[in-house]
Amino acid sequence: MKFATLRQGDTLCFGLVDGDRIHLAPEGDTLRAHLGGDLAALAARLRDVPAVSLAGADYAPVVPDPQQILCIGLNYRDHREETRPETRKSYPETPVVFPRFATSLAGHGEALPKPHNETVMDYEAELAVIIGKGGRYIAKENAMGHIAGYACFNDISMRTWQTKSEQWGPGKNFPKSGPLGPVMVTADAVPDITEAGIRLYLDGELMQESWIKHLLFDLPTLIAHCSQFVELRPGDVIATGTPGGVGFARRPMVLLEPGKTVVVEIDGVGRLENAIVAE
Amino acid sequence: MKFATLRQGDTLCFGLVDGDRIHLAPEGDTLRAHLGGDLAALAARLRDVPAVSLAGADYAPVVPDPQQILCIGLNYRDHREETRPETRKSYPETPVVFPRFATSLAGHGEALPKPHNETVMDYEAELAVIIGKGGRYIAKENAMGHIAGYACFNDISMRTWQTKSEQWGPGKNFPKSGPLGPVMVTADAVPDITEAGIRLYLDGELMQESWIKHLLFDLPTLIAHCSQFVELRPGDVIATGTPGGVGFARRPMVLLEPGKTVVVEIDGVGRLENAIVAE
Repeated sequence: MKFATLRQGDTLCFGLVDGDRIHLAPEGDTLRAHLGGDLAALAARLRDVPAVSLAGADYAPVVPDPQQILCIGLNYRDHREETRPETRKSYPETPVVFPRFATSLAGHGEALPKPHNETVMDYEAELAVIIGKGGRYIAKENAMGHIAGYACFNDISMRTWQTKSEQWGPGKNFPKSGPLGPVMVTADAVPDITEAGIRLYLDGELMQESWIKHLLFDLPTLIAHCSQFVELRPGDVIATGTPGGVGFARRPMVLLEPGKTVVVEIDGVGRLENAIVAE
Repeated sequence: MKFATLRQGDTLCFGLVDGDRIHLAPEGDTLRAHLGGDLAALAARLRDVPAVSLAGADYAPVVPDPQQILCIGLNYRDHREETRPETRKSYPETPVVFPRFATSLAGHGEALPKPHNETVMDYEAELAVIIGKGGRYIAKENAMGHIAGYACFNDISMRTWQTKSEQWGPGKNFPKSGPLGPVMVTADAVPDITEAGIRLYLDGELMQESWIKHLLFDLPTLIAHCSQFVELRPGDVIATGTPGGVGFARRPMVLLEPGKTVVVEIDGVGRLENAIVAE
């Protein structure tokens, strides 16, 4: 099953995606409110609603209102080494986790502003894990049961602001810097997420490519780890980190600029496309 | 004017505090919804509601649902030097900002769990600025006009989790680790916040003492700075940093332990008291 959240005038509506059509839930209902429950039963109810076309749909972040977005840093070896060459022979002892506010999310297809106060706007293709059943102190062996589904995420980073001080928060929380979607694919529809490839294209050119099996800390470890310090809640997002190939580590740098289009693609999960515009 | 938010059974109600009584707004209304508007007119309406006693009140975080909590690190010289002795002769170039989720807030009087997975639970007395009128790219000279009011904040920090990796997020987001309140005092009721003293007591013993005028980056600078990377919204919180005297920088360390009581006190703003309990 796939779910999406759409903007309809001033309101948001989520629905069940069926090919190029969508069965919309009543206005005021939210995907997050259902993520801790039975998604198959939800889908069955939504199928009773006549589907409408997705052509020209205005996508919102698939979960527009997560209470906690936990981003993982330096979680692929090639990205760790391109930004921290001194770590080449070591293995990280613990995941690096930093928070993002829901106010920074964007939808598939949404134009993303390049802020006038930043020159180094960078892409980061990531797999987003969307939490279903919440919990604290989740054991690794139960962790996969807490996943409602997966989505593509672009952890767009304003590098000057990220590195102004030792804490990355400012560079990771600009408005519309976190496209999430277009859809959430339910966990049961992805037989083995570790086999999925993840790629990022900038104006059609492949800039990042890896496989989820290359995560340094795998999904059960990340879920167990995060649940040690927060209570995970339905709709929470764990953005699992980006592979090598980011723009600011290249020489010359390859950055997001107005007029360019950036795509995150994950096998079996989706294709998230956004154009960059001048603020 | 002073506002508080109380727990009443399963719901939250905010109200206007009048001495030891409170004029409660209707259930379902929130303080945040009014912070961008005319608080004097709100107070006038609330005064038409008969006041009830605050005795035995169950306080929630005064703003329980901020969309963005921006915490400032290392913003008093004595705290900067006790944790970074090498910075003794320098002045920081930029504020250190890290995000906190609203899920980590607690109310005045609420028992705060010492997590079983942390040994170094520390206090940090802070002045919280609560945003009224939102905005982006706010000029320093207009910044004070964006403040709805002030509250006491205790930026309780799980030091092991804060320093497990280079990013502090995990140690700053434990459930019930951010008491905020008991009240918000409106900005117009505080003639000059820079003259206020800020103190922290642990079991009655003075552990931190400073004055808001000692902030390295003052309130207008912090508001202008944060509005460069997020759009500030009504109800957002800027926690302005803690003075010297934190527990983990002492020898021997002085930590939060079950059975102890911690108080943050700011002149003209309030007195925020919480007991620590075993998880």
